[in-house]
Amino acid sequence: MPTISAPHLERFVVSVFERLQFPVEDANLIGRLMTEADLQGSDGHGVIRLSAYVKRIQAGGINRNPQIRVVRERASMAVLDGDNGMGHVVVSQAVDLAIAKARETGVAWVNTRTSNHAGPASLYARRALDEDMIGLYFAVGNANHLPPWGGMDLLLSTNPIAAAIPTVIEPPVVLDMATTVAAYGKVKAKAKRGEMMPEGWMIDREGRPLLDPNRANEGFLLPIGGHKGYGLALMVGLLAGTLGGGAMGRDVIDFNADFVSVTNTGQAILMIDLAAFGEPAQFKEAVDVLVRDLRNAERLPGVERIWLPGEQSHERRKRYREEGIPLGDALIADLRALAEALDIEPLVQC
Amino acid sequence: MPTISAPHLERFVVSVFERLQFPVEDANLIGRLMTEADLQGSDGHGVIRLSAYVKRIQAGGINRNPQIRVVRERASMAVLDGDNGMGHVVVSQAVDLAIAKARETGVAWVNTRTSNHAGPASLYARRALDEDMIGLYFAVGNANHLPPWGGMDLLLSTNPIAAAIPTVIEPPVVLDMATTVAAYGKVKAKAKRGEMMPEGWMIDREGRPLLDPNRANEGFLLPIGGHKGYGLALMVGLLAGTLGGGAMGRDVIDFNADFVSVTNTGQAILMIDLAAFGEPAQFKEAVDVLVRDLRNAERLPGVERIWLPGEQSHERRKRYREEGIPLGDALIADLRALAEALDIEPLVQC
Repeated sequence: MPTISAPHLERFVVSVFERLQFPVEDANLIGRLMTEADLQGSDGHGVIRLSAYVKRIQAGGINRNPQIRVVRERASMAVLDGDNGMGHVVVSQAVDLAIAKARETGVAWVNTRTSNHAGPASLYARRALDEDMIGLYFAVGNANHLPPWGGMDLLLSTNPIAAAIPTVIEPPVVLDMATTVAAYGKVKAKAKRGEMMPEGWMIDREGRPLLDPNRANEGFLLPIGGHKGYGLALMVGLLAGTLGGGAMGRDVIDFNADFVSVTNTGQAILMIDLAAFGEPAQFKEAVDVLVRDLRNAERLPGVERIWLPGEQSHERRKRYREEGIPLGDALIADLRALAEALDIEPLVQC
Repeated sequence: MPTISAPHLERFVVSVFERLQFPVEDANLIGRLMTEADLQGSDGHGVIRLSAYVKRIQAGGINRNPQIRVVRERASMAVLDGDNGMGHVVVSQAVDLAIAKARETGVAWVNTRTSNHAGPASLYARRALDEDMIGLYFAVGNANHLPPWGGMDLLLSTNPIAAAIPTVIEPPVVLDMATTVAAYGKVKAKAKRGEMMPEGWMIDREGRPLLDPNRANEGFLLPIGGHKGYGLALMVGLLAGTLGGGAMGRDVIDFNADFVSVTNTGQAILMIDLAAFGEPAQFKEAVDVLVRDLRNAERLPGVERIWLPGEQSHERRKRYREEGIPLGDALIADLRALAEALDIEPLVQC
């Protein structure tokens, strides 16, 4: 697979947003975050989305110069109106605010509304790590692929949960999960590779296992743990969407089909300042010990290694930074066409 | 099945704790909460636990007169040392504190340490409902039944998550779930009824499905969504245990096997005050609309009704309050023996 160095990829993304007349600091921020997504292997939420973002921006579906403002505020919470700006920009401000508030009161929660797709959930939870905080992030997905348990109407999204917990020596514990067995991006990837899906990912309208990813629109994703994952997706949607005034349920816009309507995406960030609870080093050392206990547990036959949440992304980040980020041929071609359409320097392979 | 009226059951539980020389208000609180657990159908966490609690109290494993105190505090957080008191008493104080703090700062988080088993998670998240708040609750389970994904050492518990979200007309949305496919209590119930477990609940040490509940100690519970549920159980344990100084991982005491050691159980409560985010009525009406959309969704063949999280408990609560709480013969006999041993009035059926 062709690889691209992270600095090159980042420069390319920045040049796209500069060309679209985004403020320089916003273009830089988006470029950095989108590259980070691919660096950690969140390849369904990184530069693969660039063309769709550009399409939406050019169609007027995203505000290049949003006036992001706090519309509700108390000592340990805020609601941020994103003015339909890029999600990366809006959520980054929400995270800044949550960190500043948590530093004062110990724990803080910030919701966004009229935000947009912001890439992988863990990007924002991970912001806690350098602050000796725990970060939790909840988001409403940008297309409904999940019915209520027992139902068929697509009223829920794969609403993800991310959590980042700092350590001393060990890689941080970083959870980033859709509340469905498979994220919809994984279904699309199976279709692209011409592979069948395993049983348990989707069912059809008769309730039978759906295995052909090309028939995905004839069925539904399955939530993790059946009714439990349905409950989790609903809870995340209420916290990240409804609570802050963001879209939820039938108000969610399918951003793969509609490039103009304001998505009114909602996200929520919770920051927990370790210093309020005790000595941060003591907490982080306890996490280190736990991580090692889990990793060194006796293994089931055939299992080579026990992974901690976020550990595979951690290793990937190191490797891709050294060896470059592998991008598929189709994506490379897509980015080349984008450069041509925007009349900017194409992505340089190296 | 024999039924007991809720007031009778409550009076009986109160009399047990009075007999054990608990402070009157603590005995009353425990009686009310344990009865509420059975009223809502959380029958693995209600009076079925009474004998084990008594055994632990008589063995000196629980402090009857705890000096519960705040050991860390900021505007929107606190850590409560439960002094090894009954979990119901410790967590109730944590909830009171979280509500008071959330009223001031918008959002508040309280951890407990040296607490104990407190019954079903939803009891405490539900406290938010009368306050026009959203409540979230996390707890470290009191016995490790879950290995890390791919492993065999029991280092994690079924660490539950509960969330309660208020409504206007519709029943509140109340999620209460173990992060395993089946809670361990359900395995024990299957054994008691002489039934096999469905595939997907447990595996044995070869990684094969384990179906016989009498062989439960030869295998492990499976987390929901495989590695995802493992990640959730770990995250909940870090938030509810490690963060507040409670037991986690190999420090967790199996309270079914050891009745003396301090369990150092940790729980965490997050309270979110709707009034900080906007007009509570507006939020609750939006939840009502969403609830109806989900309930009225088109159904899969053979599905009679789509349920919302907490809706079945809601109906059960109403029914059991009118018709009495069904308790199995074995439990009735167990409570009768307990009354005799403690020399108190036995439970009256009616």
